Order: sequence, then C-alpha cells, then structure tokens
Amino acid sequence: MRGVVMYAPGDVRVEDRPDPQIVDSTDAVIRLAATCICGSDLWPYRGFGTSEGPDPMGHEYAGIVEEVGDEVTTIEPGQFVIGSFFASDNTCEICRAGYQTSCVRRQAVGAGGAQAELLRVPLADGTLVATPDIPPPDLIPSLLAASDVLGTGWFGAVAADVRPGKTVVVVGDGAVGLLAVMAAKQLGAERIIAMSRHQDRQKLALDFGASEIVEERGGEGVARIKELTDGLGAHSAIEAVGTPEGMAQAIEATRPGGHVGYVGVPHDVTLLADELFYKHVHLHGGPAPVRRFLPELIDLIWNRTIDPGRVFDLELPLDQAADGYRAMDERRAIKVLLSVG
Amino acid sequence: MRGVVMYAPGDVRVEDRPDPQIVDSTDAVIRLAATCICGSDLWPYRGFGTSEGPDPMGHEYAGIVEEVGDEVTTIEPGQFVIGSFFASDNTCEICRAGYQTSCVRRQAVGAGGAQAELLRVPLADGTLVATPDIPPPDLIPSLLAASDVLGTGWFGAVAADVRPGKTVVVVGDGAVGLLAVMAAKQLGAERIIAMSRHQDRQKLALDFGASEIVEERGGEGVARIKELTDGLGAHSAIEAVGTPEGMAQAIEATRPGGHVGYVGVPHDVTLLADELFYKHVHLHGGPAPVRRFLPELIDLIWNRTIDPGRVFDLELPLDQAADGYRAMDERRAIKVLLSVG
Repeated sequence: MRGVVMYAPGDVRVEDRPDPQIVDSTDAVIRLAATCICGSDLWPYRGFGTSEGPDPMGHEYAGIVEEVGDEVTTIEPGQFVIGSFFASDNTCEICRAGYQTSCVRRQAVGAGGAQAELLRVPLADGTLVATPDIPPPDLIPSLLAASDVLGTGWFGAVAADVRPGKTVVVVGDGAVGLLAVMAAKQLGAERIIAMSRHQDRQKLALDFGASEIVEERGGEGVARIKELTDGLGAHSAIEAVGTPEGMAQAIEATRPGGHVGYVGVPHDVTLLADELFYKHVHLHGGPAPVRRFLPELIDLIWNRTIDPGRVFDLELPLDQAADGYRAMDERRAIKVLLSVG
Repeated sequence: MRGVVMYAPGDVRVEDRPDPQIVDSTDAVIRLAATCICGSDLWPYRGFGTSEGPDPMGHEYAGIVEEVGDEVTTIEPGQFVIGSFFASDNTCEICRAGYQTSCVRRQAVGAGGAQAELLRVPLADGTLVATPDIPPPDLIPSLLAASDVLGTGWFGAVAADVRPGKTVVVVGDGAVGLLAVMAAKQLGAERIIAMSRHQDRQKLALDFGASEIVEERGGEGVARIKELTDGLGAHSAIEAVGTPEGMAQAIEATRPGGHVGYVGVPHDVTLLADELFYKHVHLHGGPAPVRRFLPELIDLIWNRTIDPGRVFDLELPLDQAADGYRAMDERRAIKVLLSVG
C-alpha cells in the first residue's frame, strides 16, 4: 500500500509500505475512505520532538472494515467505521468514566500511520464506531473530522463546562478551535467569542456559531474580553493552541469560578500555582477521549445538523501529502484532506 | 483593646491597640468570643513573605455584634455571627456563582487583625452569618473552625468533586486536611485515605471518618495509593499543604478523569502543563469561598452532627498568643484557640 512517512523535519514522503495485517485477535484492518493532516503533525515537521525517524504519519481515519481478528464481535467487514487516535477497550473503569484516551489498555493507533491506504486498529470492538450505513461521499470529510479535531474541540467545550446561557472564549483558530466553536454552539452557549486575526478563519468561526470575534492578543486580548463581559471574564475558555501565550490567554480571560478546557497539546507550558490559586478557575484537559463523543457526533453529522468537514479547505490525493504539509505549515490551509484510492 | 501584632518573623506580641470603629456604613464591629492561629500565619512567622511589619494578625472569627453601620439591614447588634477571611457583598455575579472570596468588592478582613478582642468586618450583610441563637460555650470552637479551616477543608472536598461512593485521598494532616476528611465523610465518600505520619493526627483523621492511613510520602506514597485503588488512583484528592511535594502527591494519586481540589496556599509550586495534560485530572482550588458553605456548616454544628472544634488541641488566653505561635511552629499543637475576655 501507499503511506506517508516523515524522514526528518520538513521531509515527508509517500512510499510503498507493507500492508498492515491482523496481529492480535482483537484487531481490525480498515481501508481508509480518506485521511488527513493534523496540526499536531506540524510539531515534528517543524523540528520539535525527539524522534529519529523515519515515522509513518497520521492518526485520523474513517473507512471500511476489511478484516477483523477472531475475538472481534461487534465490528464486521464491510462496515464503515470511525475511531480515535488512541485505541481503547471501552470496558475498563477509566473508559466507563469517559476517559478512553487513558484506557488501562490504550494503544496509539498512529503507530501504524493513518495517512495510508490501510490501517490496523487494535481493540476494534472498543475503539471503532460504525455509521448506520455506508455514508454518501459528501459526508466523509465530516465523519473524518469526528475522528480527532471535532472530538477534540468537543472535549474542550465539555472540559470548559460549556452550557446554555454561558459566555465562552475560544483561543486558537485552527481546526480544533473552530470546531470548539461548533461544539460550544451545540452545547447551547449564549455567546461565543472567537479569538482570531485571519479573515477566512473568522468567517468560518462565525458560520460555526461564534457571536463575536476578538483580534487582539495577549494583555490587549484579555482586556477586550473583560470589556465584553462586564469586567468579569468569560464563564468558559477553550485553549486550542498549546503555547504558553494561549494558556495564559485562556486563564486570564476566565472569571473566578469559571472553567478552562485545554486541548492544545502543551509545549513548554508552565503554570505558576501561586498565581493560578487566586484565579479561582477550574482547569481540565488532556488528550480528548473522542470515543466518548463519537456516537453522538456521528449522529449529528448523519442527520446533517453539523458540517465539521468544512474545516478541510484543501483536498489532495494521498500521493501529494508533502504539498499538504507545506500548505498547513505555511498556514495556506486550515486542514488538508488526503483522498485515498 | 488587646490584639496580636507580628513585628518580624518569630516576633509576635500582644499589645493595646485602638478599638476598631465603623468606617463604612456597611461595616459591623464584633466582640470576639474566641479567635485562633492559622497554619497560614506560620508562613510570615517563618520568614516567608514580603511584609515589613508590624502587622495585626488573625483572620478567623466568631462573636457578638456590637455595632453596625447605617446601611446594614440583616445583621443586628446582639447576634452571634461568623464570617470568612474575605468580606464579600454576596450579591455580585461572582458571589452568586459561589465564589465570594473573589467578590468584585471583596476586602480582606484580616487587615484589622482578628486575633483581638474586637474586629471591624466590612460588608456585614454579605459577609456575616448569624447562628440561630447565642451558642452554648462548648459549640464556640466548632463555630470558630467554620470561619476558615472547616470551610476551607469543605471547599477542598467540593473542588475535588467528592461524592457518594468515591475514593478520596487527603494530602496534609493540618487542621484543614483533617477537616477535609470530615467534609469528605459528610459528602458521602466511600473510602477516605488520609496521608499522615503523626499518630495524634492519624487518630483524629480516623475519628473524622478516614478509612485508611498512608504514612509513606512522595513516590512511595503514590505507589501505596495506587496499590489501594486497583492501580488506578483515587477519584479525588484534596491538597491541604501548598508545597510542590504536596501538589505532586495529590495529582499523581488521582486517576485519569479524577479531580484534585487544592486549598493549601501554594508557595513556589510550579505545574508543568506538558505533563499535567496526560494526567487527565481536573484541577480546581483557590481561597475557599467559605461564605458559600457557612449556613450549612453552622447547621451541622448547631445540630451536633459534626464537631470540627476538635482540631483545637491547645487553648490559651489571647495574651499568650506568642506561646501559641511557638507551639504550632514546633508542631506541638495542630491548632491553637485563643480565648478572649
């Protein structure tokens, strides 16, 4: 099969790789309908990270089951399925509490590389969720988005305790931030303030339900949020960047007693508890337990209530993955869909 | 009146000070029935802090209203009242959300020094809660405890999302930690693991509802908690120390998806978000909004359901406050009650 491999920062190639096989009896192998490039793939692309390479890339996937192991009981060949970047048994105590990305038996699906034609998914029964039927082609981008960016934005909103009547700030206008806006809207937020200085992203944020845009950053951005919220700050803030500036922005923009949900993978972010203490905020985040939300997200997409696939503003064939990485690195694209087959 | 003043680290004196007066029309002046020394008073006593002194000391109080300002409508002279270390209007949006210690009009009550015979309390209507009647003398220690340490331990348990059926770890065996055990018990926790290596404090923890004691600290302490919880960690941890070690202990002892409530005032505590992210815990804390809990706490004390006054294991007359500071500093006493009048 064809698959994407990163040899070094900036060096992404598509090459022939061995077809994945069933290894454990709880595995499935799926043929991808489409795959995509994640904002988090840009960290190693830009030289952050410790890998010596070469690494198969990709952890977002949706497609048709080709084969399952002997112990798989609920997933069958021929089904269209979606899963998350961590495989989970969905039966342990941590999974049952809704934290499948910390499942006691969790395995990184990305190890095999989902930017490829085929993918081995461990713990298939616990990890994969089937759609009601084979989806029409126009739903595939949205179903693929559910695999990570939508689920991650959704978790950010849930972690930030977004509820009807609340004012929510979203820090970060990448795919996760934009879909956090969508999640906040679905969860009933009254006001959604998107922090963005890119016109195309602002437009999408507004389409997804943002009620206000704040272009300022840092102290000025916080001051603007305070101004918009009677001096108090927002009830909820969703951090979808993962930088010290993004985290500070989210915490400072939240009122005492409010909630910060952080889903941008933090890079060199240090929090001073001596200061955090007096902020009085709730802080929750981590690798989004997408599996918790998948049934609901698939339902909303299937019924065409939401259209998260709109975050894909560039589509390329898998073989042109390197162009896709470049486009995202240069911020010419919000998110790149790689078509397969 | 007589009052406690700290001149420098280790130098605590009781001296004649001017009687406090009504300054604002929303003030009350109360005559203290008793007051006490707080664990947080030991930080400046030990030389941590920036004050140049001399500073009137104390922020925990219960007593009888002597006089109220013209605008005070619900509090009357003759009532026995309890309040928190921050005065709050109890009407602003932050107060109504239960975060009175971040009230938009908050004022530190401690500025006047509650280790004294009389105390001026700002925003009396919002700050003070009256008992149903003048309390019998044996209830006074418990009512005084409600002013800070019980309310703070309670907030720690609420911030840690303690609920029926849950397993809770309490880090810290000072008065706040011990009363966090009591709070966890009242909130229905199934198992309460108190971390303590002092026999007298262990005994009190068990009396207050702890089901297990863990003497180990650091990595060994965490390993022991994991052993007691099927390798997963506790659902909830309450941090009642404020040191880097205490915070690390609480976070590490909590399972993914669990809650850490931190109420020990942090001193030089740095959190690495890059690591915290993968812990998947909820983090909440801050200066306890004691006012939120006071009506319920007074009720539980009045009905003799709880007896938090037992944390006072040394009683001295106000004039011997310096001995009380020494006893707490040397850990000869958990908490010192200073009798007044």
